[in-house]
Amino acid sequence: PPGKKVLIVYAHQEPKSFNGSLKNVAVEELSKQGCSVTVSDLYAMQFEPRATRNDIVGRLHNSEEFNYVVEAGEAYKRGALAKDIIEEQKKVQEADLLIFQFPLYWFSMPAIMKGWIDRVLVRGFAFEIPKVYDAGLFKDKLALLSFTTGGSKEVYTKGSISGDIRYILWPMQHGIMHFCGVKVLAPHICYAPEFVSEKERKEMLVAWAQRLKTLWKEEPINCSAEWYFE
Amino acid sequence: PPGKKVLIVYAHQEPKSFNGSLKNVAVEELSKQGCSVTVSDLYAMQFEPRATRNDIVGRLHNSEEFNYVVEAGEAYKRGALAKDIIEEQKKVQEADLLIFQFPLYWFSMPAIMKGWIDRVLVRGFAFEIPKVYDAGLFKDKLALLSFTTGGSKEVYTKGSISGDIRYILWPMQHGIMHFCGVKVLAPHICYAPEFVSEKERKEMLVAWAQRLKTLWKEEPINCSAEWYFE
Repeated sequence: PPGKKVLIVYAHQEPKSFNGSLKNVAVEELSKQGCSVTVSDLYAMQFEPRATRNDIVGRLHNSEEFNYVVEAGEAYKRGALAKDIIEEQKKVQEADLLIFQFPLYWFSMPAIMKGWIDRVLVRGFAFEIPKVYDAGLFKDKLALLSFTTGGSKEVYTKGSISGDIRYILWPMQHGIMHFCGVKVLAPHICYAPEFVSEKERKEMLVAWAQRLKTLWKEEPINCSAEWYFE
Repeated sequence: PPGKKVLIVYAHQEPKSFNGSLKNVAVEELSKQGCSVTVSDLYAMQFEPRATRNDIVGRLHNSEEFNYVVEAGEAYKRGALAKDIIEEQKKVQEADLLIFQFPLYWFSMPAIMKGWIDRVLVRGFAFEIPKVYDAGLFKDKLALLSFTTGGSKEVYTKGSISGDIRYILWPMQHGIMHFCGVKVLAPHICYAPEFVSEKERKEMLVAWAQRLKTLWKEEPINCSAEWYFE
């Protein structure tokens, strides 16, 4: 609806890819609804995935023994994080909805996107023990994982060798999003777009646009172990 | 035992860290056994985690639409992968045992290590459909995840909010290692070393050294869904 802010964190090297098309569909449909849409195009930004001392401007809290999580948390408090992190945090802070668009790499997100998680979701900003899970700092935000797979839907079912796709979702949806308090919408999964017909790929894009039309009316999933493993 | 080759893929920024000590213990103990030990110290190497066009030397297979998995696979076949990838692949090829040493970041490995997985385990080298899982290309290799957590052991048990630690292991042990045919040894997990006494930390290091003494006699886990979810 008008006024809603959406951040799309997008990780694909190729604008002409199917992931690129899914991202474009989301930008178009959400803009049409009057949402304000921001895209973090990680490869285009050459986003830095490595969590290092360079992320902290100026002196360290403890220069004798570098502890990234502690140092990043301290730097957040005094506004001394690297500029690229601060910019991403601003986008997250403003967003009502986070969409992660990526191809599944090794049962998870590509390293460049994992690096965005590692570096942007700093202690104090995204979580603060014990303010986690349902008491999390981002409890007014929604998130949705939208991704493509190499394998077919059949490959990712309970009892098949690669197991239920939900097993894969646990670390990302629960361990990252829910941990920060974010409400998780059902994932949007396009299975094996490389191996289907052009017609089916088009139908997948239409289905995504359709879903987005009523996205704001969706109820979040019940992001507990039962949803994933029972 | 003498002659065995071990590759330790190590991801911590600080040599004095507990992860650094665990890595040192492994190098020392395995060398004492007569193993030949190689360490890929990812932060020290400033290892590149981003999977990009730069990983392919020379012409692309399809320059109209860049597909990383396809291009890396083709480049592997013609020996045209980036030098840093080829060097890591040589280490993997020679290794009888892979040890991954890292702090758990967001229910997973740090982005720099995920980047090592994404870029080094190229199609044709590490897997080739249908040569995956028990028919995988690396079926003569062993792997072991050795990692530290922020949370206590109690936090990672079935029924607690963060769930069984095994849920987290599925994408890494099954989706990556088993997928390539690697036999998986039980993980070595040091819970919350930051929050225990110096004495307990020393005991953890001793326990790791002890385990390594008889590691080669261990049976791999049964890396199927039952191990993780039942």
